[in-house]
Amino acid sequence: MSIKIGIVGGTGYTGVELLRLLAAHPHAELQVITSRSEAEIPVAQLFPNLRGHVDLCFTEPDVKRLSDCDLVFFATPNGTAMRLVPELLDAGVKVIDLAADFRLKDAQVWEQWYGMPHACPDLLAEAVYGLPEIHRADIAKARLVANPGCYPTAVQLGFLPLIEAGWVDTDRLIADVKSGASGAGRAAAVGTLFGEISENFKAYKADGHRHLPEIKQGLSAIQQTPVGLTFVPHLLPMIRGIHATLYAPLKHNVSPSALHTQFEQYYKNEPFVDVLPTGSHPETRTVRGTNGCRMAVSIPQAGDTVVVLSVIDNLVKGAAGQAVQNMNILFNLPESEGLKHIALLP
Amino acid sequence: MSIKIGIVGGTGYTGVELLRLLAAHPHAELQVITSRSEAEIPVAQLFPNLRGHVDLCFTEPDVKRLSDCDLVFFATPNGTAMRLVPELLDAGVKVIDLAADFRLKDAQVWEQWYGMPHACPDLLAEAVYGLPEIHRADIAKARLVANPGCYPTAVQLGFLPLIEAGWVDTDRLIADVKSGASGAGRAAAVGTLFGEISENFKAYKADGHRHLPEIKQGLSAIQQTPVGLTFVPHLLPMIRGIHATLYAPLKHNVSPSALHTQFEQYYKNEPFVDVLPTGSHPETRTVRGTNGCRMAVSIPQAGDTVVVLSVIDNLVKGAAGQAVQNMNILFNLPESEGLKHIALLP
Amino acid sequence: MSIKIGIVGGTGYTGVELLRLLAAHPHAELQVITSRSEAEIPVAQLFPNLRGHVDLCFTEPDVKRLSDCDLVFFATPNGTAMRLVPELLDAGVKVIDLAADFRLKDAQVWEQWYGMPHACPDLLAEAVYGLPEIHRADIAKARLVANPGCYPTAVQLGFLPLIEAGWVDTDRLIADVKSGASGAGRAAAVGTLFGEISENFKAYKADGHRHLPEIKQGLSAIQQTPVGLTFVPHLLPMIRGIHATLYAPLKHNVSPSALHTQFEQYYKNEPFVDVLPTGSHPETRTVRGTNGCRMAVSIPQAGDTVVVLSVIDNLVKGAAGQAVQNMNILFNLPESEGLKHIALLP
Amino acid sequence: MSIKIGIVGGTGYTGVELLRLLAAHPHAELQVITSRSEAEIPVAQLFPNLRGHVDLCFTEPDVKRLSDCDLVFFATPNGTAMRLVPELLDAGVKVIDLAADFRLKDAQVWEQWYGMPHACPDLLAEAVYGLPEIHRADIAKARLVANPGCYPTAVQLGFLPLIEAGWVDTDRLIADVKSGASGAGRAAAVGTLFGEISENFKAYKADGHRHLPEIKQGLSAIQQTPVGLTFVPHLLPMIRGIHATLYAPLKHNVSPSALHTQFEQYYKNEPFVDVLPTGSHPETRTVRGTNGCRMAVSIPQAGDTVVVLSVIDNLVKGAAGQAVQNMNILFNLPESEGLKHIALLP
Repeated sequence: MSIKIGIVGGTGYTGVELLRLLAAHPHAELQVITSRSEAEIPVAQLFPNLRGHVDLCFTEPDVKRLSDCDLVFFATPNGTAMRLVPELLDAGVKVIDLAADFRLKDAQVWEQWYGMPHACPDLLAEAVYGLPEIHRADIAKARLVANPGCYPTAVQLGFLPLIEAGWVDTDRLIADVKSGASGAGRAAAVGTLFGEISENFKAYKADGHRHLPEIKQGLSAIQQTPVGLTFVPHLLPMIRGIHATLYAPLKHNVSPSALHTQFEQYYKNEPFVDVLPTGSHPETRTVRGTNGCRMAVSIPQAGDTVVVLSVIDNLVKGAAGQAVQNMNILFNLPESEGLKHIALLP
Repeated sequence: MSIKIGIVGGTGYTGVELLRLLAAHPHAELQVITSRSEAEIPVAQLFPNLRGHVDLCFTEPDVKRLSDCDLVFFATPNGTAMRLVPELLDAGVKVIDLAADFRLKDAQVWEQWYGMPHACPDLLAEAVYGLPEIHRADIAKARLVANPGCYPTAVQLGFLPLIEAGWVDTDRLIADVKSGASGAGRAAAVGTLFGEISENFKAYKADGHRHLPEIKQGLSAIQQTPVGLTFVPHLLPMIRGIHATLYAPLKHNVSPSALHTQFEQYYKNEPFVDVLPTGSHPETRTVRGTNGCRMAVSIPQAGDTVVVLSVIDNLVKGAAGQAVQNMNILFNLPESEGLKHIALLP
Repeated sequence: MSIKIGIVGGTGYTGVELLRLLAAHPHAELQVITSRSEAEIPVAQLFPNLRGHVDLCFTEPDVKRLSDCDLVFFATPNGTAMRLVPELLDAGVKVIDLAADFRLKDAQVWEQWYGMPHACPDLLAEAVYGLPEIHRADIAKARLVANPGCYPTAVQLGFLPLIEAGWVDTDRLIADVKSGASGAGRAAAVGTLFGEISENFKAYKADGHRHLPEIKQGLSAIQQTPVGLTFVPHLLPMIRGIHATLYAPLKHNVSPSALHTQFEQYYKNEPFVDVLPTGSHPETRTVRGTNGCRMAVSIPQAGDTVVVLSVIDNLVKGAAGQAVQNMNILFNLPESEGLKHIALLP
Repeated sequence: MSIKIGIVGGTGYTGVELLRLLAAHPHAELQVITSRSEAEIPVAQLFPNLRGHVDLCFTEPDVKRLSDCDLVFFATPNGTAMRLVPELLDAGVKVIDLAADFRLKDAQVWEQWYGMPHACPDLLAEAVYGLPEIHRADIAKARLVANPGCYPTAVQLGFLPLIEAGWVDTDRLIADVKSGASGAGRAAAVGTLFGEISENFKAYKADGHRHLPEIKQGLSAIQQTPVGLTFVPHLLPMIRGIHATLYAPLKHNVSPSALHTQFEQYYKNEPFVDVLPTGSHPETRTVRGTNGCRMAVSIPQAGDTVVVLSVIDNLVKGAAGQAVQNMNILFNLPESEGLKHIALLP
């Protein structure tokens, strides 16, 4: 089986990571990759790690050529996919959007956080939120998959077993999250220069980050009532990796072993979620370059607060890897196909 | 005025930082620095940044020579100072211990967390906890100062104005703290190799870190009842800097401007604490190499949780700089003497 | 086909990298991995990136169990393999030593640089130096392969086409080489702490590094007369990667295009050596985690000096990857089997 | 004594470093700092490390206000200073240009390397090249000082004692130089993003970097005949620091001790050049944040090549610090005034 694939965008970090994964995927046949700014440049010239693996050149965006594909990935800035997706869907092409255009169900909320009108709000209901651990069945039948954000993936996977268990006060959830600098993308910007990021650490957007409504939407849907969440993102002096440190107040006494069992049971059939033994602290590097999420849970000092530590690679499980996982589901392939990498350590 | 100074230890990162500060201090006269392992080696050979600034050699520990000093700093591992301090105090020498030997008031709690019997528990009551922002007056009259830990400095300074105001539920405080790798010291260890720390991030000791009882002791003393604190430390892939992200549940409605005013008022006369304008996010690099603490406060999404962001340099305000600040107080010098550095940026 | 494999050592960075590669190799069947210090510990506990990929525990070294293997890799400190290799060879096991025990042909030179007597100098003649680009045919027939050092791989591959062409004065070769810190291994040591390596750069062993005689032996053998080489290694504040900047004085005029053609021709059939277009500068990250060597050549300012830029991943083409390449040759497998990774970028 | 100072530019890394140094200089009185893009923004808002130390706001460039200064520093991109300098000199203001506008004596060479016509070629002869170790006397009498480039400072200081001694073949000098990323400035650019620089290493502009003619001009002037130099710059994954590794072929036998003595004698009265003991390897961090240059010399393996290792902080001795040193000379102050910092280590 061979899936004809198009990529719109693809000059950013999410794009090159998608290319790395697809170039080695046994059923992916890369047909076209578009970029206005890099048109006619060989992909492997921009990203020399792909020399010998990807022969394509970037081309001007062209809906006709994209319509010949079975699947189109959008690795574009927010607000781009929504302008092209309706036409592609009409042409029978499946779409996975790695940006945020179809992640929120409420167009008004989307417009408030993303600061522009939505071009096709009617598709929001149809789009399936591509977190396979929750929506696997719906993804399999979808035409349009909204690939989750990086923080929302790490945070939701960490909170889900707790919410499902009903043990914690979901009015006062706290997510203290830290991301590598690649999460900010490959655009030229002073704030992400080496001289600004290295040997430095800071929080940002403590008052409100776009991933907050996405996480609240996901957790509230599971619980079927709204959750209260304080979400503070921080910028790490490293390239890849997200570490979510999650705090939830216990409503009543829970033993550490019951807590651990709940997480293990919840994820026991998941190929990409690994619950570590009690007392562990997951390291971001143990999932670097892989589609895995590793987590550990504890109740420090036998107190009344659960702590969940959850790590992913923001460019893989937080972006391109999850997109490929969604592709596998869409095309009825084994979910781990092309995603069996072992993390580089060190 | 010239203070004759001895340093015990001084081959670690705290030691070299203390040397950097004292070498440029107008009233410090370095007399002796001891190290069993490096005896007879010039200090500037071990630490070439001190070439031309420090002429001393390390010498074998010798209580007699130390007794000729006005002040002795201990930059030793935990458990060393307590064996020598009584003799030095008897000789009329003032002592500042940069390790943990005299930080906790309760010898039993100390022994539980540090895993050894305390050699002079009777001195615990006399020792003054050297956080000048709280104990300035007592430090001025002390013989023995227990220099605070790095995390406890950043965390206590961040929570103090909140506790003083009485606005938050102190049963559910959360301190999510992140430290540069120099906090782990200069001892040979696999866990702090470059290959282990770089391009990696993790929590550690989530179940209980030695700085937890120190912070709880300090905050509880201010509040005069015990506080409840969840404290999760993390290891940053950078050398210097601590960032404490603090969460406290509001007991009732407080406006962001009232919150900000409370912090500004609380610290308005402090030479080393800088409350940033509303909406700021302090960066660790803005205090690198300096004795400053910078902080910002907010109530994200107008919710019911206060977030305090507090940064220090773990080796300066979190160790050697605070020790020099305490020296200035002990010897009635201007508190900023020798501590006026501007942070390197970038 | 399934090759039964034993690993002696394997708790260092070379070891974990070998495990990563072998765990995904279709013909490698890992039977035993020994470590005195970690005996009975699961491999995946020490290296959590291997969770789900390697089920073995470390065991005490045991020649009998190793003798049941088809192939044994030594990922041990220098001086260990030479004590066990004779017995294993007698038992009909093939051996690849990733340390230096069998790299030099002259036992006296070896003893001078490695500071100990050689345990089996008679095997030095038989051992094949495992640089496949030169010794492929001999490797295929070998019992014992001496896997090259990291610097020697990058430097020899860069100089070979020049020496072969006879265009440069080989009395005055210069190799200015820079290595990531993982090259220093995973042993606890002050010099490789994060606090010592990060935000710092220095040369080391400018007067003489153990890889100097290894490089000179290799280049002199090709040229059939001794070469003169100045070799200055430096330590980079990064984990993986070697960059060799090589300088060779031209004996007579050579055009840039002739130079480039010579390199392209020399390596045109090599699966792992990639000569970049004129004007390129290879980046270490483009080979990170892969067995590739990328290089570029130029004659700056149309002068009389050739500059070769050659990069590898010190843990892969400079160690574990080249060892697997040698394994493939030894067992008559396609040379790229299990070595088709694409580098992570960024 | 108080020097009224203006800064043109000052929003880059060189600018903030100049501000850090001048803010603590006892005789510098900062009057005006101009920036078109940041006009009316407080300097300490852009660079929070300066909070409490610099109260000025950026203002629109205004020759009249600058003319009231005693001294104007240009911390602008190449090509800016040359448009304003003539007017300022006419107004009796002294000028130190930290950019390249007045570094080369030959306008044609300048135009070839900098790709634009020179606005005031007649001033090139008058401008004094501000390397105090060579031109101290001329600087003292100058109106216009061309502050040297970062690489040229490290490279020239390293080669000077050799050229002066006449021991080496200056037709075949090699400078393999490595710079921290701050050398590329604070402009938004993909190439200097954290994601591009971190965990990566590469050479750049191996075919010809603008500092090549500057170095050749300086060395040739000392020797009074042209030198031949191969100069290959590399980009280090760190913020600050230059390490020059210099190679020179000996014309005849020289002993290591004679070599070392020549360097020690040459620099024995220099406040900022420190020749390390034989066998040392200078580390960039030992000069971080300081105006020092540390160097070591050797003749590896008793061969025929001298190796000089020379380190500076590219933003201090390679830019802002040397500019302040030149200011001290211009105004007859002690040369180390305001430049006595001790490097942060670690």
